[in-house]
Amino acid sequence: MALINTPFLKVVNDEIQNKIDKKVNQFQAINRDKKLINLSSGDVIRPLAPCVMEAMHKAIAEMGDETTFQGRGPVEGYPFLIDAILKYNFKNYKIKIAPDEVFINHGTKENLAGFGDILCRDNRIAVIDPVSQEYIESNVIGNRAGDLNENLQWSHIVYLECKKENDFMPEFPKLRPDIIYMSYPNNPTGCVMTREILEKWVQYALKNDILILFDATYKSFVTNPEIPQTIYEIKDAKKVAIEFRSFSKNAGFTGLNCGYAIIPKTLSGYSYIADKGANLNALWRRRLMIKNYTPPYIIQRGAEALFSQAGLKWVRENVDYYMSNAAILRQALTDAGLKFWGGVNSPYIWVESPYDSSWKLFDKLLNDCYILSSPGERFGPHGRGFVRLSSFANQSKVIMAGTRIASMK
Amino acid sequence: MALINTPFLKVVNDEIQNKIDKKVNQFQAINRDKKLINLSSGDVIRPLAPCVMEAMHKAIAEMGDETTFQGRGPVEGYPFLIDAILKYNFKNYKIKIAPDEVFINHGTKENLAGFGDILCRDNRIAVIDPVSQEYIESNVIGNRAGDLNENLQWSHIVYLECKKENDFMPEFPKLRPDIIYMSYPNNPTGCVMTREILEKWVQYALKNDILILFDATYKSFVTNPEIPQTIYEIKDAKKVAIEFRSFSKNAGFTGLNCGYAIIPKTLSGYSYIADKGANLNALWRRRLMIKNYTPPYIIQRGAEALFSQAGLKWVRENVDYYMSNAAILRQALTDAGLKFWGGVNSPYIWVESPYDSSWKLFDKLLNDCYILSSPGERFGPHGRGFVRLSSFANQSKVIMAGTRIASMK
Repeated sequence: MALINTPFLKVVNDEIQNKIDKKVNQFQAINRDKKLINLSSGDVIRPLAPCVMEAMHKAIAEMGDETTFQGRGPVEGYPFLIDAILKYNFKNYKIKIAPDEVFINHGTKENLAGFGDILCRDNRIAVIDPVSQEYIESNVIGNRAGDLNENLQWSHIVYLECKKENDFMPEFPKLRPDIIYMSYPNNPTGCVMTREILEKWVQYALKNDILILFDATYKSFVTNPEIPQTIYEIKDAKKVAIEFRSFSKNAGFTGLNCGYAIIPKTLSGYSYIADKGANLNALWRRRLMIKNYTPPYIIQRGAEALFSQAGLKWVRENVDYYMSNAAILRQALTDAGLKFWGGVNSPYIWVESPYDSSWKLFDKLLNDCYILSSPGERFGPHGRGFVRLSSFANQSKVIMAGTRIASMK
Repeated sequence: MALINTPFLKVVNDEIQNKIDKKVNQFQAINRDKKLINLSSGDVIRPLAPCVMEAMHKAIAEMGDETTFQGRGPVEGYPFLIDAILKYNFKNYKIKIAPDEVFINHGTKENLAGFGDILCRDNRIAVIDPVSQEYIESNVIGNRAGDLNENLQWSHIVYLECKKENDFMPEFPKLRPDIIYMSYPNNPTGCVMTREILEKWVQYALKNDILILFDATYKSFVTNPEIPQTIYEIKDAKKVAIEFRSFSKNAGFTGLNCGYAIIPKTLSGYSYIADKGANLNALWRRRLMIKNYTPPYIIQRGAEALFSQAGLKWVRENVDYYMSNAAILRQALTDAGLKFWGGVNSPYIWVESPYDSSWKLFDKLLNDCYILSSPGERFGPHGRGFVRLSSFANQSKVIMAGTRIASMK
């Protein structure tokens, strides 16, 4: 019989999701006429940009002609998309990234989780908490997490606590990690790192020889100029950080799956067993050749269109739509006298439960407002006591939700 | 500094590819007017089916409307595609597979390599040889391969030797493995397993409690009725085998990336450390949630169209085109007095070098016929002494190549 990767058995249960499903089912069973408003999802709802659709139609036509047909694409992505990304997201901000430092991928999750393949199981991992749990789970699979204790923390993971007492900005850990996972604008707290704070973290990583895996999926939602456009605005960040970006949320690409990672060639890792260093950029390229495909040509042509004038305008309008949803929810929460963070520079709002548990606020939103929210526990131990509201919903529904929240008792 | 997964450092070199590149560059430098015919590629060249294009255009239009927009898809794939696959590739052959035993993926490589995530590093892996080297490399990454010896074999891998002395049908290994990787029709030898032989392997796996990972990517190229349509035609195969299928080669999907795996719910694995068994189907589903995305909605709609009448007809014509290429090459090789296997029920032809090394035949094809082939070493130690010719090329070029091969001295 095939031998199972034992650590994997620890992540198989999905108790929190089961609890949510049970509560929703119970609600619907006794409220058949009530339609729930889903503010729990990280998935987008707005349609694709016309220019993206046009570019994809054109790409399909090319695939129908032998002279322009595209088979297997380059594993790191097509140069036309890499060039567009570099021009608009980096060169325009005077950031120098070489084309072979860009890797087009199917999305941040795939890359952040897959990166573990090139990392030894003995790395000490630090993860901001609360955060998307795939960061943790992929390290559980990679046997870097240890055991789950009764506080729902993994024994070998260093948790960088983000709580209201520190404005959701973590302190440097007592134990030096080898690798730090960060996500800003943060999912779920909606908080952002200013240039000053990010500089401190880059300095800390430089001093302690730490690799930062920086998830900037929600970058496009930032309007505050105090927030860097990319971590590479910070001096010497190319010596410590990999940045992950995505078209999922700003351009409605969750059903198309396209993002990218910047892996500077200045980054190295080391194997003490082999007594040998290695370039992370080269290792990742090899990893892709063994285990991955590049996103389809059609999809990459669609992504390229986002950097046209029409595409850039459309992304801005798309982000504005979701951010005006966030504003509606913020106002409603204020009216209800609830305490919250985020919803500015981020599509997520992190609401403190006024009760002794996040589940009580979750229940109240469900039963009184017919709103489905995300209990903070879903995002790690420091999510307790909060719920996350998402702006990724139809605006007429958000307005309805806002009215109900505002008059919540 | 991040700690590198030490075994990974062993696979980083790519000597064989470098040697090929060097030879090609040297040839072109002194033969600038000569155009090479590429018969080394596993990538297809024929355009997409009109019905696939139409389905994708329609899907794009749906993505442009909020009421029909598709965000993140189900991690195991859309039911419409799963149902079509089951109806045409299994129910029609009276094979019972449940919808939740099908997993749509980006292609076989991703799944075969990714499957290691749920497997313990202590599994003993057996791999037919020669074979696509990603099978081996993903196990090197997973620390299941041991060290590379001077014979280019990994110390912990059990090689199931496929050589002309055994008609490229391996014997049962002396050492019982936990997992066997097989690929039939085989890449690169082009050989196929008859029902009788496959039955023996399923019996062997049942008796010894072995998991078979069966790569059936080239299934559509089979015309001989003695070759099973699927491994599940064999009695009790659902108790031992996972089958991987793909639209890449038969439908020109190498640039779209869509395939699927069948993971029967009857398959289990075991962890002796946790003293606990687990269902492989459930583990893989969880693995997908942590590390993967489903292929885009648009692509899955395109794949669904392959099961329409027009799609089925088109796939048959597409396969026929490549197989008539194979017939042209077979005739030319016969005329040249070369010994070969495959090219029937498979797009690949495995040519024995009449010299003391495969590189000499490679050089002769390159310098005398202007043909780029794949030296057998690329596919593992038992590839030595052979070259692989591929039928995935434009027919007018294949005819030209055939004429040159036939008159080769």
